Amino acid sequence: MNEQQLNEHNLLDEVLDQLSAHKIGPTQIGDIVYELVHGYILDLTPAIATDSVMHVLAKREVQNAILTGLALDTLATQHLLPEPVQTIVENDEGLYGIDEQIAMSITSVYGSIGVTNFGFVDRTKPGVIGELNEHKAGVVNTFADDLVGAVAAAAAARLAHDNPAAVHQNFGIKHD
Amino acid sequence: MNEQQLNEHNLLDEVLDQLSAHKIGPTQIGDIVYELVHGYILDLTPAIATDSVMHVLAKREVQNAILTGLALDTLATQHLLPEPVQTIVENDEGLYGIDEQIAMSITSVYGSIGVTNFGFVDRTKPGVIGELNEHKAGVVNTFADDLVGAVAAAAAARLAHDNPAAVHQNFGIKHD
Amino acid sequence: MNEQQLNEHNLLDEVLDQLSAHKIGPTQIGDIVYELVHGYILDLTPAIATDSVMHVLAKREVQNAILTGLALDTLATQHLLPEPVQTIVENDEGLYGIDEQIAMSITSVYGSIGVTNFGFVDRTKPGVIGELNEHKAGVVNTFADDLVGAVAAAAAARLAHDNPAAVHQNFGIKHD
Amino acid sequence: MNEQQLNEHNLLDEVLDQLSAHKIGPTQIGDIVYELVHGYILDLTPAIATDSVMHVLAKREVQNAILTGLALDTLATQHLLPEPVQTIVENDEGLYGIDEQIAMSITSVYGSIGVTNFGFVDRTKPGVIGELNEHKAGVVNTFADDLVGAVAAAAAARLAHDNPAAVHQNFGIKHD
Repeated sequence: MNEQQLNEHNLLDEVLDQLSAHKIGPTQIGDIVYELVHGYILDLTPAIATDSVMHVLAKREVQNAILTGLALDTLATQHLLPEPVQTIVENDEGLYGIDEQIAMSITSVYGSIGVTNFGFVDRTKPGVIGELNEHKAGVVNTFADDLVGAVAAAAAARLAHDNPAAVHQNFGIKHD
Repeated sequence: MNEQQLNEHNLLDEVLDQLSAHKIGPTQIGDIVYELVHGYILDLTPAIATDSVMHVLAKREVQNAILTGLALDTLATQHLLPEPVQTIVENDEGLYGIDEQIAMSITSVYGSIGVTNFGFVDRTKPGVIGELNEHKAGVVNTFADDLVGAVAAAAAARLAHDNPAAVHQNFGIKHD
Repeated sequence: MNEQQLNEHNLLDEVLDQLSAHKIGPTQIGDIVYELVHGYILDLTPAIATDSVMHVLAKREVQNAILTGLALDTLATQHLLPEPVQTIVENDEGLYGIDEQIAMSITSVYGSIGVTNFGFVDRTKPGVIGELNEHKAGVVNTFADDLVGAVAAAAAARLAHDNPAAVHQNFGIKHD
Repeated sequence: MNEQQLNEHNLLDEVLDQLSAHKIGPTQIGDIVYELVHGYILDLTPAIATDSVMHVLAKREVQNAILTGLALDTLATQHLLPEPVQTIVENDEGLYGIDEQIAMSITSVYGSIGVTNFGFVDRTKPGVIGELNEHKAGVVNTFADDLVGAVAAAAAARLAHDNPAAVHQNFGIKHD
């Protein structure tokens, strides 16, 4: 691939292909987003939540994070990473931290709500994130689960920013 | 207070005084830390958790964040902030974000685990954080609840970094 | 101000008013942006740079950071902050860090380029930032200089993201 | 390498080996640190600056960032990364951002001064960083230059935190 091809390359298609290869679809991420925010954005539908996911996936910085993280997972699955990174990534070491760090380049674009949403999702591992975290059958998903969590957190934060009145109604204080 | 006095000033005492004025004690923060990590650091006691809180509170960057945030809460309670900041802080607007941003200067010192812990605590609001978030009787705690959550998240991350084997045992993958 | 008024309130006008009270105009920030990026975005004009500043100032998270930081400067100038925060802010202590932390909520929205741009501006203090940093005549600008630097860094990063080919041409490697 | 070996593995030796393979020595990083801070920490020597670099390199989160980033550079040099990441990393695309993101997990541990130092170094590319950025003879250093810059920025911030009086003397305001 030369530089010209890279510029013309539709990175969004590439991102969707790579997610698909890890058995992750945008609607599965949309379902997590829906669970996160439907309690306070009352007219939200799973389709609108998935639409927010697609907006997040269209951002270049998000695409770079996903493509890099999934490349590391793929290389780890193929035992092609140099040691000791191979062993660390293969075992999803709890103190590694680089998986969350790359994922946070997705959420920080959506302000501090994006970051706190991510922390919540990272601990509770809803939906497809929990499935990825099981690392079945020799497939390494050390980066994949954090990347999906970060996209969901970002898409939820994006909806919150677009619905300030709903957020206010549900998080603002009720004065005495 | 002149600069000389500031240099000699024991900022930790000042921080503990200010937390006390907001009815927050280190052991209450320690209890949150204990709940966060006792599931995987099996020999943890509430006393050790509170000791970790005290280590976090001894850091200058942490002290600066707490003193600044609590000053903003105090000024808001006294209706002394200029508008529109007074109204925004008084109402703990869900999209304000500066409370979490200041709090994250506490957690980022403890790596990405500190930040994800904070996101979890920020959403689940355990213990004294939930009480602060109720903003009873005209006292503004917009910054206080996030600062306490961040200190708890940082103290928990600190314990995790000191117990890599325990973290590994509980978060590492079990291979097929 | 009640919550209804806050929602209707045009925060952008408020931000421009507050900047003006600190003797900062958008074109002065635009001049810094122009200096930062005109070397590699060749058709850039100071007017386009200032337009990018206005786009940054229209973001709610940016507005919250500016209004909060300038409120702290104003209160420090009036000697209304509680001690020891009054002394710390009044003296623009080099290790305080909360001024940069609030400012970084402006730049992180524009990805890692925003953050590195900010670091550069924060050290080199071009244009109006250097003037603010002189803290003339008892006016405290501890937060103001960092906020202006962050807005300039964000506006420059925004232009870079909108001109990928120009960035590529000037930062990409020349292969052997 | 099994998990037991990883736990016993001296990651610091591994980090120094990997840096050496990229022709980077701790004293070269120490020289950058010395240039950054000797103007205000007057009794600093290059040896003390290098000692601060060694303290930074001893941190686990720092080691993880360096090992991961250098692994990506090595794989790119060997043309082993999956596309389009191979082309992006090989060309050190200006908008890629993941190199700076991984590097910032090194600096954020040292507070906001660490992050702003990094931004400055990332733009000015002093010493060995500038040499790495030239990407000579087909060797990819897309991550290496940012990692070295981040370690230097962190080591400089560490010295600043240990010398508050020196920082105060040189950055505090001179009152009228």
